[in-house]
Amino acid sequence: MKLYNRTQIQDVVQLDHDALEAVEAGFRALGEGQVVQPPILSMAIEESNGEVDVKTAHIRGNDRFAIKVSPGFFDNPSLGLPSLNGLMIVFSARTGLVEAVLFDEGYLTDIRTALAGAIAAKHLSRQDSCRATVIGAGVQAELQIAALKLVRDIDTVDVWARDTDRANAYAERMRARFDGLTVNVHGEIDSACREADVIITTTPSKSPLLDAAHLPVGVHVTAMGSDSPEKRELDASVMTRADVFVADTRAQSETNGELKAWAGKAPPFEVHELGHVIASGQSPRTGQDQITVCDLTGTGVQDTAIAGFALSRLTSGH
Amino acid sequence: MKLYNRTQIQDVVQLDHDALEAVEAGFRALGEGQVVQPPILSMAIEESNGEVDVKTAHIRGNDRFAIKVSPGFFDNPSLGLPSLNGLMIVFSARTGLVEAVLFDEGYLTDIRTALAGAIAAKHLSRQDSCRATVIGAGVQAELQIAALKLVRDIDTVDVWARDTDRANAYAERMRARFDGLTVNVHGEIDSACREADVIITTTPSKSPLLDAAHLPVGVHVTAMGSDSPEKRELDASVMTRADVFVADTRAQSETNGELKAWAGKAPPFEVHELGHVIASGQSPRTGQDQITVCDLTGTGVQDTAIAGFALSRLTSGH
Repeated sequence: MKLYNRTQIQDVVQLDHDALEAVEAGFRALGEGQVVQPPILSMAIEESNGEVDVKTAHIRGNDRFAIKVSPGFFDNPSLGLPSLNGLMIVFSARTGLVEAVLFDEGYLTDIRTALAGAIAAKHLSRQDSCRATVIGAGVQAELQIAALKLVRDIDTVDVWARDTDRANAYAERMRARFDGLTVNVHGEIDSACREADVIITTTPSKSPLLDAAHLPVGVHVTAMGSDSPEKRELDASVMTRADVFVADTRAQSETNGELKAWAGKAPPFEVHELGHVIASGQSPRTGQDQITVCDLTGTGVQDTAIAGFALSRLTSGH
Repeated sequence: MKLYNRTQIQDVVQLDHDALEAVEAGFRALGEGQVVQPPILSMAIEESNGEVDVKTAHIRGNDRFAIKVSPGFFDNPSLGLPSLNGLMIVFSARTGLVEAVLFDEGYLTDIRTALAGAIAAKHLSRQDSCRATVIGAGVQAELQIAALKLVRDIDTVDVWARDTDRANAYAERMRARFDGLTVNVHGEIDSACREADVIITTTPSKSPLLDAAHLPVGVHVTAMGSDSPEKRELDASVMTRADVFVADTRAQSETNGELKAWAGKAPPFEVHELGHVIASGQSPRTGQDQITVCDLTGTGVQDTAIAGFALSRLTSGH
């Protein structure tokens, strides 16, 4: 059994095409019905404003599966500690023996979440998408654009965040990271979205930020912020306005994602799943003017896929 | 963050009164409503005849909680490997940071399971119980008796197992382990149970082994084998014959334990919970002739309790 820390993992796993293919293969297997993926285990530690989630999945035929444990303790910043944390345990799918523990402190979650956004855009956004809007200015605001650039030639980013100082700092970071990238900071969501080919919402908001009036013709929206029962980023009008709605998994979107807008009732539109879209080999977008929406809540199969990918790189001396 | 292996853990955690009190305190907190205990996460790996369970719980006010991951791969013996395995991760309940990983390979599960049996007997069996019957001849058949001896002066053990060679081997091990202990091997469950003060069923049976006709007056029965939807050790008649029925948790007994006999319907008797019994300070047994039954399916609070106990011993230089 091997143990790896965050630095070792960061050295070999970044946002690249190989990592994207690994996560996409996980989603494809999910769409093909080749994945066992139990519901998320979630526990609140109320007195510390904390929670812990456990996700897992097994891709049939794979040699390994992973279990991810993600604590989120939201008073940690006042102690000088990060809110998010965690580790992944990689097991042999033949014997159940632990092959490795990846003490990634949430790094692989960041990566697989960003890659899921890129995979959604690959299959749903217009091929000629070059301008992206980001709502929020945190880690995922940065990683989602970095991942999106793997699949679309993004030259301009428009950003809105509740805190304008953070949006300005984000713009500086992004200009420094990506040579030639234009980054515009906006004071209103409306103006931030006006020219968008792709909109990505990356916030922990508990009330909808984006509504149908913000959507330009032909846009693709990825909402990746909502991952728990109390969070929501999209007004119901975004989804009823869209021509295509895709969830990473329907069940999780209903409990933790944007389908909560229908509170257990059937939404008045077809719900696609990202894995089925990939497995079918055919985008549900059938025109340049259509609006597509993808809701990402985070799935165990992404964790199993990225953990397996990380371990293969760690052990191959990559 | 510290890592400990099975040998290190075995050196400091055994079946003793301190460990029993730690697990009993966990059950008491559960009975007092001071525990957050989400449903078990369970995933099958069918092609390897395997499964993995994740259990957790948080005792409000405790500094630590644990998450336990238990793989069971039942073809492993043919590969020369144990079926059961696993580890416990101990987190700070203030920050969510990992304090330790206990690579106990299932040892702490064995211990906390045996202690739960002793706790059940402490609160439910007759004080003068001195003769115990064990159904099954595996690890728990041995540990349950060792733990029971912490709370009752057991001088005689009667054992029945499907495989008589294993029962004979068990008897030899037990005589060697406990000086002066009388161990009788039986060819029939009926004769094994005839003189019992306490009966403990410790098998992975998928059909009931024990029925009401096997129960002597005044006996206490602990059924600890059934911990999944397909297992059962007790015929429904055992529970309808009993004066008192106690589950470690009612919800788990209904899905994974002996209340499955009623298949989602309300059973025709009162269901007590072990934590409530402990918290109330009063045994539901009100007479020497009463028959009591306790169904143990294994709870997250036991894992959090034993992991916290183990880590405190490991770090105190005990």
